[in-house]
Amino acid sequence: MRNVLHAKCVTCGKIYDAAPGLTNCTCGGILDIIYDYDYIKSHLSKADLAGRQEHTMWRYREMLPVEDCTELPPLRVGWSPLYQAGRLASQLGIRQLYIKDDGINPTASLKDRASAMAVAKAREAGAKVIACSSTGNAASSLAGNAAAAGLKTYIFVPSRAPKGKVAQLMAFGATVISVQGSYEDTFALSKAAIDRWGWYNRNAAINPYLSEGKKTVGLEIMEQLQWVVPDYIAISVGDGCTIAGLWKGLKDLYAIGFIDRLPRLISAQAEGCCPLNRAIKTGEDWRPMAENTLADSIAVGVPRNADKALLAIRESNGLAVNVSDQEIMDAQKLLGRTCGVFGEPAGVAGTAGLKKLCEQGKIPANATAVSVVTGNGLKDVANAIASCGEPVSIPSDMDQLLKAFAERGIPLE
Amino acid sequence: MRNVLHAKCVTCGKIYDAAPGLTNCTCGGILDIIYDYDYIKSHLSKADLAGRQEHTMWRYREMLPVEDCTELPPLRVGWSPLYQAGRLASQLGIRQLYIKDDGINPTASLKDRASAMAVAKAREAGAKVIACSSTGNAASSLAGNAAAAGLKTYIFVPSRAPKGKVAQLMAFGATVISVQGSYEDTFALSKAAIDRWGWYNRNAAINPYLSEGKKTVGLEIMEQLQWVVPDYIAISVGDGCTIAGLWKGLKDLYAIGFIDRLPRLISAQAEGCCPLNRAIKTGEDWRPMAENTLADSIAVGVPRNADKALLAIRESNGLAVNVSDQEIMDAQKLLGRTCGVFGEPAGVAGTAGLKKLCEQGKIPANATAVSVVTGNGLKDVANAIASCGEPVSIPSDMDQLLKAFAERGIPLE
Repeated sequence: MRNVLHAKCVTCGKIYDAAPGLTNCTCGGILDIIYDYDYIKSHLSKADLAGRQEHTMWRYREMLPVEDCTELPPLRVGWSPLYQAGRLASQLGIRQLYIKDDGINPTASLKDRASAMAVAKAREAGAKVIACSSTGNAASSLAGNAAAAGLKTYIFVPSRAPKGKVAQLMAFGATVISVQGSYEDTFALSKAAIDRWGWYNRNAAINPYLSEGKKTVGLEIMEQLQWVVPDYIAISVGDGCTIAGLWKGLKDLYAIGFIDRLPRLISAQAEGCCPLNRAIKTGEDWRPMAENTLADSIAVGVPRNADKALLAIRESNGLAVNVSDQEIMDAQKLLGRTCGVFGEPAGVAGTAGLKKLCEQGKIPANATAVSVVTGNGLKDVANAIASCGEPVSIPSDMDQLLKAFAERGIPLE
Repeated sequence: MRNVLHAKCVTCGKIYDAAPGLTNCTCGGILDIIYDYDYIKSHLSKADLAGRQEHTMWRYREMLPVEDCTELPPLRVGWSPLYQAGRLASQLGIRQLYIKDDGINPTASLKDRASAMAVAKAREAGAKVIACSSTGNAASSLAGNAAAAGLKTYIFVPSRAPKGKVAQLMAFGATVISVQGSYEDTFALSKAAIDRWGWYNRNAAINPYLSEGKKTVGLEIMEQLQWVVPDYIAISVGDGCTIAGLWKGLKDLYAIGFIDRLPRLISAQAEGCCPLNRAIKTGEDWRPMAENTLADSIAVGVPRNADKALLAIRESNGLAVNVSDQEIMDAQKLLGRTCGVFGEPAGVAGTAGLKKLCEQGKIPANATAVSVVTGNGLKDVANAIASCGEPVSIPSDMDQLLKAFAERGIPLE
């Protein structure tokens, strides 16, 4: 990889060759992929990108850690739409808001970006089996992307994972182990199994390439905004890998001169599970928490990528905001009604956080913000119905329809 | 609309001006939009398309019945991926197979193509309210596309509609009437309400523009195949609007000389509800049937677009194939495992039908086929789990993992 210099431990600074099977540093720290920005600058321009017909995450191949000869995975991942959300911006009282809908990815979440990278790197490593633990979306995205590429998967999910995600896993033919316990318990068993059988490791906090897949969401946002940097980018935070990846992408663009400043990140966590935001607010080290939220994807009491995530939030002079489950479900409805975007609970936590900060007067009225919706609402239908309610149920009869409308105060022109 | 001549009844041939609020002919027949193909030929070339950065259904605007000044709806609909499915082709014993995954549309089904068109035409008509009846996907797609455009929706679904589709409707803020009865009962009540209140009508068998939205799936398939016509295109059939739309797109391309022959259509219906395929096989008129299939989207006992659908299948020298619920669910797993594509039951019926025809020796081994997956499996999780099974459930313990693997005969390298 001529664009990559090496991998470097974020904790101790130790340098590693960028081999495809990299995991954590011997000190336990997480590795970061370090690029030769001069090389990238001399091989990629904004005009190059503007002319490309490859509308996937791989349009940024000069900025990604894959060999030139690597066969890319089959599913079409990335280049999700960025919608201008004027009505929602007005409601929140800010100048402009954009919604990045990553729920339209092939397996319906942002995690496809990391899983596609995992499949590419597993192919480079000559692996035939990939494994991971996941709250659900990393799992279903790995299962789908690997199935399309003809690779076998072993997947560990906590037993609380919503049915939609489990259904995907089973349909994609993964071997799925539902662990009776927390995400931390699930992670532990997956690690023991991966160590024992030597499977390719798709755990995003261990395999340093996965953040590089996730960073493409940041690259896309900036290109879709024609390189005009927003003031804020809001995103939900669980393990910490996604916000770290987003930040990496933005910093890469800054390093190669495609953008001239950096936005402030908004880290949204659930009130019932916010170890990273607590660390930001107190300035202390992060400590484990219980996993008390219906937003299953971000119910991570022991975040595995705390170091990179905290670094990202702090470097960006970011804001940490905790949202209640009720605020999350309200944001789901708000996005659906004003934007036609249906996000899963964790997927809309960023929007919930942005809304809360606006209400608290912490976002100036002339601000431009982006909110990333990280997963599709169809992943967790039970919570959506509990929140949004059931439809009017009647026989096929006009009198009954009139009566039902009148009872519910539904106005008819 | 300089590209449109008029609308014409497929039953009696009566001609109508192409006003945005068109419904059925006075004779009860369905209208078809008739184009000025010379105009289109002089305004659109293959090279024009190849250079376009608009990767949505609207890239074919010269072939679509919208005014130049019409503001297009906000959600990014169409340009779904066409995957080359080499391993599945080998399993079926044909030369090449492509899977068109329309489940990645904004509300996760092909119906977004028709609903986006409905929103565009409702705007032309100055309407503020749109209504429809639907087995579920037309409903959720209308609700999402209309919400994004700031339009109100009244939606009628049969009470059997799967929870995923209902959850979408509620999240998008539609007024939803769940009708205790069949799809036919649902359609009847929606018609009465639309007549009473004068809402803009998104029922695809009544509003002739909607097939024109759906035809974009055919336009895309051909452009993605670089205008090399496949031998077969397989698709599931319920109301008949989708296969009719697909055929319209192919015929349009033939008329303007972009393709030099036409493929044969494969009409896949459920054994328990196959009024159109029965008509094809017997050569008689279609007659109503019960709605006995778990593939809810195509459980349509009284198909509302029978005329256009039968015409399409017959004109293409098409094949009609009925599939059992078991064959549908087997196809769901097969697509998931070999392609990483997770389709809803009705969405994979086309693949099930193609597979059955291959097994019956009705498709030659040197054939190239396309199978359209019309909706995402996340729409109906209950049936997927019933079919694909539940995961291994254990505590976080290596001995238990070894035991579980051994019991299930899971081989480990």
